[in-house]
Amino acid sequence: MAALFRGSRTVLFSWNKHVDSAFGNVSALCTRTMASKTPVGFIGLGNMGTPMAKNLLKNGYPVICTDVFPESCKELQDIGAQVVDTPADVADKADRIITMLPSSPNVIDAYTGNSGILKKVKKGTLLIDSSTIDPYVSKDMAVTAEKMGAVFMDAPVSGGVGAASMAKLTFMVGGPEEEYTAAQELLTCMGANVVYCGQVGSGQAAKICNNMLLAIGMIGTAETMNLGIRLGLDPKLLAQVLNMSSGRCWSSDTYNPVPGVMEGVPSANNYQGGFGTTLMAKDLGFAQSTATSTRSPIPLGSLAHQIFRVMCSRGYANKDFSSVFQFLREEEGQ
Amino acid sequence: MAALFRGSRTVLFSWNKHVDSAFGNVSALCTRTMASKTPVGFIGLGNMGTPMAKNLLKNGYPVICTDVFPESCKELQDIGAQVVDTPADVADKADRIITMLPSSPNVIDAYTGNSGILKKVKKGTLLIDSSTIDPYVSKDMAVTAEKMGAVFMDAPVSGGVGAASMAKLTFMVGGPEEEYTAAQELLTCMGANVVYCGQVGSGQAAKICNNMLLAIGMIGTAETMNLGIRLGLDPKLLAQVLNMSSGRCWSSDTYNPVPGVMEGVPSANNYQGGFGTTLMAKDLGFAQSTATSTRSPIPLGSLAHQIFRVMCSRGYANKDFSSVFQFLREEEGQ
Amino acid sequence: MAALFRGSRTVLFSWNKHVDSAFGNVSALCTRTMASKTPVGFIGLGNMGTPMAKNLLKNGYPVICTDVFPESCKELQDIGAQVVDTPADVADKADRIITMLPSSPNVIDAYTGNSGILKKVKKGTLLIDSSTIDPYVSKDMAVTAEKMGAVFMDAPVSGGVGAASMAKLTFMVGGPEEEYTAAQELLTCMGANVVYCGQVGSGQAAKICNNMLLAIGMIGTAETMNLGIRLGLDPKLLAQVLNMSSGRCWSSDTYNPVPGVMEGVPSANNYQGGFGTTLMAKDLGFAQSTATSTRSPIPLGSLAHQIFRVMCSRGYANKDFSSVFQFLREEEGQ
Amino acid sequence: MAALFRGSRTVLFSWNKHVDSAFGNVSALCTRTMASKTPVGFIGLGNMGTPMAKNLLKNGYPVICTDVFPESCKELQDIGAQVVDTPADVADKADRIITMLPSSPNVIDAYTGNSGILKKVKKGTLLIDSSTIDPYVSKDMAVTAEKMGAVFMDAPVSGGVGAASMAKLTFMVGGPEEEYTAAQELLTCMGANVVYCGQVGSGQAAKICNNMLLAIGMIGTAETMNLGIRLGLDPKLLAQVLNMSSGRCWSSDTYNPVPGVMEGVPSANNYQGGFGTTLMAKDLGFAQSTATSTRSPIPLGSLAHQIFRVMCSRGYANKDFSSVFQFLREEEGQ
Repeated sequence: MAALFRGSRTVLFSWNKHVDSAFGNVSALCTRTMASKTPVGFIGLGNMGTPMAKNLLKNGYPVICTDVFPESCKELQDIGAQVVDTPADVADKADRIITMLPSSPNVIDAYTGNSGILKKVKKGTLLIDSSTIDPYVSKDMAVTAEKMGAVFMDAPVSGGVGAASMAKLTFMVGGPEEEYTAAQELLTCMGANVVYCGQVGSGQAAKICNNMLLAIGMIGTAETMNLGIRLGLDPKLLAQVLNMSSGRCWSSDTYNPVPGVMEGVPSANNYQGGFGTTLMAKDLGFAQSTATSTRSPIPLGSLAHQIFRVMCSRGYANKDFSSVFQFLREEEGQ
Repeated sequence: MAALFRGSRTVLFSWNKHVDSAFGNVSALCTRTMASKTPVGFIGLGNMGTPMAKNLLKNGYPVICTDVFPESCKELQDIGAQVVDTPADVADKADRIITMLPSSPNVIDAYTGNSGILKKVKKGTLLIDSSTIDPYVSKDMAVTAEKMGAVFMDAPVSGGVGAASMAKLTFMVGGPEEEYTAAQELLTCMGANVVYCGQVGSGQAAKICNNMLLAIGMIGTAETMNLGIRLGLDPKLLAQVLNMSSGRCWSSDTYNPVPGVMEGVPSANNYQGGFGTTLMAKDLGFAQSTATSTRSPIPLGSLAHQIFRVMCSRGYANKDFSSVFQFLREEEGQ
Repeated sequence: MAALFRGSRTVLFSWNKHVDSAFGNVSALCTRTMASKTPVGFIGLGNMGTPMAKNLLKNGYPVICTDVFPESCKELQDIGAQVVDTPADVADKADRIITMLPSSPNVIDAYTGNSGILKKVKKGTLLIDSSTIDPYVSKDMAVTAEKMGAVFMDAPVSGGVGAASMAKLTFMVGGPEEEYTAAQELLTCMGANVVYCGQVGSGQAAKICNNMLLAIGMIGTAETMNLGIRLGLDPKLLAQVLNMSSGRCWSSDTYNPVPGVMEGVPSANNYQGGFGTTLMAKDLGFAQSTATSTRSPIPLGSLAHQIFRVMCSRGYANKDFSSVFQFLREEEGQ
Repeated sequence: MAALFRGSRTVLFSWNKHVDSAFGNVSALCTRTMASKTPVGFIGLGNMGTPMAKNLLKNGYPVICTDVFPESCKELQDIGAQVVDTPADVADKADRIITMLPSSPNVIDAYTGNSGILKKVKKGTLLIDSSTIDPYVSKDMAVTAEKMGAVFMDAPVSGGVGAASMAKLTFMVGGPEEEYTAAQELLTCMGANVVYCGQVGSGQAAKICNNMLLAIGMIGTAETMNLGIRLGLDPKLLAQVLNMSSGRCWSSDTYNPVPGVMEGVPSANNYQGGFGTTLMAKDLGFAQSTATSTRSPIPLGSLAHQIFRVMCSRGYANKDFSSVFQFLREEEGQ
């Protein structure tokens, strides 16, 4: 598999012209070419899709959008996007289309349904799916799109609603290498990092891997912090020790699950906001499925999946996934 | 529990006079007081103890040492240490003693055995145990030492033989807060970081917690990398994606278990050197015991323990613990 | 879901005319109707399929068979079966067809491939698939068959080659209730127990559930026996205690994994024969997939899956799955 | 280790004269010898101890008893037992003493405390501890008792309050083989099965092993039943299929955790009564500790321990351990 970062072999991070004012020339260039920007289609205006589409508008791209819930389109319409009825209508008017949908069936429907993109897609259209779905569905869509002369790429994101609003998402991109530059042009309007991962499905694969390790690190941090507290250690001190030692991980140093250790994270806000347990369980379901089909043992990933699954049945579905600390902790009064 | 870092509330890292030349005054001060330095006892001259004791000598402390294997003392003797027969003899000649022993029974014997330290310990002696042992044994030793008028502190280390040689160890210290400065004076000769963790046993507790999270992160990294490779991702690329995302952890960014991803780590050298699987299994045994006795659920830590335990039975006992990647991977030819 | 045992609501076991001579009338009846028996198709003549098809012949059913490997048909041909080239040819000549294939893709091909059954299937044909496959594939096949006017039932088996030879298999059957009697007529020639489990796919579901619990019980027995032995208990004594107490399970009382405890089981024969670890891992893959898609937590089942998966990578793929005892045990010399 | 069943090599079950009226002669014999029966001490009159001591009385043994809570002795006193103040007082008046206490510290106190048995124990006294405790504590007590000329045996029980009332307990006995007959005389008054397991501590070891496998089987059954139900199978049908197949275990065929499948079990009564989750978690703690100290991998046992531990923190501490089915199941309304 060809695997490289475009632009520069050593710098992983693409620039983000809104954030980094040092790149003045780049911004100027973008502004100059705005007049000639052709419309971009956007399908799926949920919590993530809306700010992503807004960032395309801010970058001067005319946006043609739709959603199964028409009311979801209102916010975009108010700031200048053109709203149409169906994905097919989007495909009729735009030759670059981004989809951001909640699950595999929604993606299948938006592409191959009766009013789907592929009913009216033009030859040469670039289709970028930023949904997190089964990588096998991504591959299927790519094969189907190719038959219509279109190009399908998967580009799932890392980062939540906040990152989407600030154009700070990370995109993990899979698809034909020769189309990557075209995809990158749009994705850099919405994200701070764009990484080319390989053939179609690789973006999903990379995201699944990241989230599985994230899940393991989070549960591991939660149970370690809990054990340390039970052994009499101060939580903040323990977090400091871990973070200066080999126990360090993103969940311990950036998103600590123990209330009182850090500010500005879900654990400081009763596990509101953030990344819901049910979404983590969904992603771990993909990890589990792909591990099963590739016969890869994932003992901790699999157990992490089960733990988040049980949490969903015990009232934690909509809390941030770092609430696993609360889940593992002894209840008051016991 | 009083839990703080001494010296400065915000700076975690104690200075290391050999490494950081910016602290010129400190070094100067140390040099001036060298003449009056009193002897330090050192018991246990294995792979770790020998370079640690050497660093005390280098810092101008006369060292009085012993080991159950007399030949282990030769290297120290050659560079000026005084060798005696038993821990009791050490206690007779030094009022600051460091012990660095492989397991709880060795510690119990060195302190309370027939020729143990406590047979001849002087009132006011400072006893620092840098062994990694059961925290309950540390507490027992402290109680027993206190009856003799001595002070016992636990100060297990993080970092291997290399860190010991370069005086780059991290010490996690538990014991009476008012004795910490005295302990710190000696420990900074042997380590780059000295952290006060609370009452006696806290050092062991912190180390156990760190190593449990390390174990979880390592297995998690190994299974994630393996899954990604099976899904067609390039290992180096995957490591880069993880390290710029929320999957990042010490095992992914500093000690990656996949051969070819990083240099200078055990995975680049057929898992030779490093931290043996059997030692990790030992530390996880402490995590398991303390979790059981404090009724703390450690689902991933417990499974990690079992995995390293099985690895010990399958020929991985003396390989670096990152060889779990190899253990989980499909064998050649299957 | 309608869920009942046919014939009798309380007796689970269907009769088996070869085994239970008490049902003399039944046998007589079978003999009388033999002359009018119409041909039965049989596709898939592997280790299981061959003895199953033989038992149909023994019961007087003309058999028309095929296999992707023509040489596999020789044994059946020699004792009177008619061999044809493709599944389509079988469907052309028989209106009751049994398939016994190794995996989902083989089943899909045998039914819907270019020379598949459905190319020539007659209206009203009864299709019984005894393969162990994904229950969703069973449902797909049923829908496709129904469009051609045929009836598809899933009837996976429990029991190995020995049980197949002695017509002692257990069949778990899913499909339209009104077709169950017709299926039962054939299945009782090959098995001792035929259980109706509900709509199509239910047979696979029941088998998956059974094998998941079997896997858990086997690993549990192996680690319990190993722990007991380490604690100084005699293995035979421990097995007796478990089997008279609440620890009792099929793996402890019928298929004990510890060499020397029982005779006539794979553990008494260096784990040769029996049910291969790789097959168990395959079945647990189905458990994992269906658990993921139904959002059912299976913590132990999932870990069991991972353990057998790791065993497959460590040289145990073709040993009986009870070799997990050997896998968990300390190696000689350690 | 000598390991055998006394009395008969093949029959595991001792008779129970109260239950089985066929053994008329035995009962008669017991009645005739009542006059010469010497007193038996009994320490610990909780839910289990009280019915056990009653059965000694019923068998004609004078009982001398005590409990840390004097009011607990009232029931026994009313039916003829002599109540004394301390274990030492019991030891003063009886040369056969049974202890039935909740945990290791209670046992240590009852034997070696200031008013403990060993303060006044007579030479040759038979001490039988039926508590479930750490086997290492049993060994310690045996060594200490031996120094006083007494014999200590461990004889933990399997079976709950109901079995205790009906003298249907199973005793697993460890201690000197030559003392087993004397112990058996008393234990058969309280239990249906008495098994000699080997040297002191073996009884605890056997019980730990049994309960670990029980825990694994129960969770396995719960998750299997839940998965099957999600896949559309009828719970009763699924239980029947498992019980006629290789998935069969005590938890599936005798104590099924799914409400509606069986009568007379805790699952039929909202998980009231039975064996509390907190007790199972305690026993699994012993399994975990002994596994850690003997370096035995127990992957499923360890995970089972963690699951019951989490359940204790989530409100299931006092429900029967089969409530794990409820714990794993999706909540209403989700």
